[in-house]
Amino acid sequence: MSKPSIQVIAIGNAIVDVMAPCGDDLIERFGMVRGGMTLIDTARAHELYDAMGPAREISGGSAANTLAGMAALGGKCAFIGQVADDQLGEVFAHDIRAGGIQFDTPARAGDPPTARCLIFVTPDGQRTMNTFLGASQFLPPLALDEAAIADAEVLYLEGYLWDPEEPRAAMRRAIAAAKGAGRKVAFTLSDAFVIERHGADFRAMIETGEIDILFANHVELASLTGHDDFDTGLVALAPKVPLLVVTRSEKGAVAMHGGERFEVPAEPIAQVVDTTGAGDLFAAGFLHGHVNGHPVDQCLTLGAICAAEVISHYGARPEADLKALVAARLG
Amino acid sequence: MSKPSIQVIAIGNAIVDVMAPCGDDLIERFGMVRGGMTLIDTARAHELYDAMGPAREISGGSAANTLAGMAALGGKCAFIGQVADDQLGEVFAHDIRAGGIQFDTPARAGDPPTARCLIFVTPDGQRTMNTFLGASQFLPPLALDEAAIADAEVLYLEGYLWDPEEPRAAMRRAIAAAKGAGRKVAFTLSDAFVIERHGADFRAMIETGEIDILFANHVELASLTGHDDFDTGLVALAPKVPLLVVTRSEKGAVAMHGGERFEVPAEPIAQVVDTTGAGDLFAAGFLHGHVNGHPVDQCLTLGAICAAEVISHYGARPEADLKALVAARLG
Repeated sequence: MSKPSIQVIAIGNAIVDVMAPCGDDLIERFGMVRGGMTLIDTARAHELYDAMGPAREISGGSAANTLAGMAALGGKCAFIGQVADDQLGEVFAHDIRAGGIQFDTPARAGDPPTARCLIFVTPDGQRTMNTFLGASQFLPPLALDEAAIADAEVLYLEGYLWDPEEPRAAMRRAIAAAKGAGRKVAFTLSDAFVIERHGADFRAMIETGEIDILFANHVELASLTGHDDFDTGLVALAPKVPLLVVTRSEKGAVAMHGGERFEVPAEPIAQVVDTTGAGDLFAAGFLHGHVNGHPVDQCLTLGAICAAEVISHYGARPEADLKALVAARLG
Repeated sequence: MSKPSIQVIAIGNAIVDVMAPCGDDLIERFGMVRGGMTLIDTARAHELYDAMGPAREISGGSAANTLAGMAALGGKCAFIGQVADDQLGEVFAHDIRAGGIQFDTPARAGDPPTARCLIFVTPDGQRTMNTFLGASQFLPPLALDEAAIADAEVLYLEGYLWDPEEPRAAMRRAIAAAKGAGRKVAFTLSDAFVIERHGADFRAMIETGEIDILFANHVELASLTGHDDFDTGLVALAPKVPLLVVTRSEKGAVAMHGGERFEVPAEPIAQVVDTTGAGDLFAAGFLHGHVNGHPVDQCLTLGAICAAEVISHYGARPEADLKALVAARLG
């Protein structure tokens, strides 16, 4: 097995976030699932966009956000995801490449357009996401660069991609390629509703040892294990994955590895502006530590630092100099 | 003359800003005009976008930003400007309408695409703008809603629109329509380089009394009058316009009206993040005060409050609740 030349290669939805603040009443009026991610069709996208205030557009996508964080920390990363050949596709491709991430998936011609996520941010900083998957759901298994996957230390996959059929097939193939090359597979559960839809698949992948590193938040842990009590769920799941990382919002995060439990508090921040990308950036910091051989407790701290940065401003991509933040905190 | 039902109708470039921080070296390496607005072609747009870091997209356009500020303060405004029938055109149209501004100019089919402005923000908060005018330069005189212009208390025009031929013709026609209906014409000089190109036109419009309210910054004042000394320029220009408003960056702003001089200092702010839109939002606050019958010194203060808000964050559209800010400051 040759030394990998990429640290993390990720497959994810290629999405541009369309974000605006809103009052709590709007979430209720349109029956949105507060704090969740809901897939929407064209008609609903128009309805919600019409109701949205003046917005800003910032590249997003869960796994892509994670890579943006890792690249900002100095990591060598590659992304696979499907944009359309349109202006938002150009924006997504520009932003990910400008962050120093290798991105070679060709844009898809014609309809549907590039994926966008309408994100309503309530005064408490909570984000409610409405995703129009567009071109992203047509990532063909053939778009996979299996040589690149075999050449990466970690293959990182987002649970969100389990919804559309073509990317799901592509991910299964990617897992086989990574495993065949002796690489690690990291997976993020993404959202409790995704688990409601695909929990059986996720549990099967865990049982068969396909997942080496599993990221979840406390709600997803409960959804996956069926245990509402955090510790019960953690203890039930931990023996099935070599490295389990669970974030708990303001309560910090926990990792389970080799039968041991590691824990960090959340980093203090002045104000939660927008929680979009909190989990994605936690994963960025953690994975950065992991691929660079840091001990688990330090990986957790790195995750907490990156998550704190991203929730202190609008948008799910880091804005501050993450390298400097980490250096200031860890020395 | 019937009572106008719109306070301010503006004609301006319909632009989406593409903004990213950058080091001072990048400005020099690409020979950009620091702090200025340069028109760019497709090739240059590609070259600069390739060199730009991960960016965010926020609706912009000078006069449109001014209306966004006025609408946020509760004003009744309308905008005329040309977008293309594409994703960025949709973004622009959504944002301006979501701000409560009437916008009825139909999108233009086919090439070129909607205008975008590549804005590089250096560590000092200064913005260097590179504008690809695209569809915006094809605003046809026929797109003018002359009834709406006659129905607005003030017609507000940006000097930037003097560059492309069709909008220039449209603006001359708009001025005639406003004047014919007994309305006021407000004009912003926009940029010293625009004055270099079109100063003769601007001076002729001033001499013939077509401009009732003139907005400039200190650099533009010097460029228009040929006087490097601020007070000399001010005294030379003031007798030619009923109301002259000149901003001076951190030195505040001055207005000349009826032979009297009014002055305000800049509002104190914690940190200048991005100066994009400072002049536009100053004009918003000032015009809001003006159309609501406030005395000139209070109009200046309103301008300073709005300018301070917009330079404390990325993007040229207000983010904070301007109404509340103004109420807190003026009671």
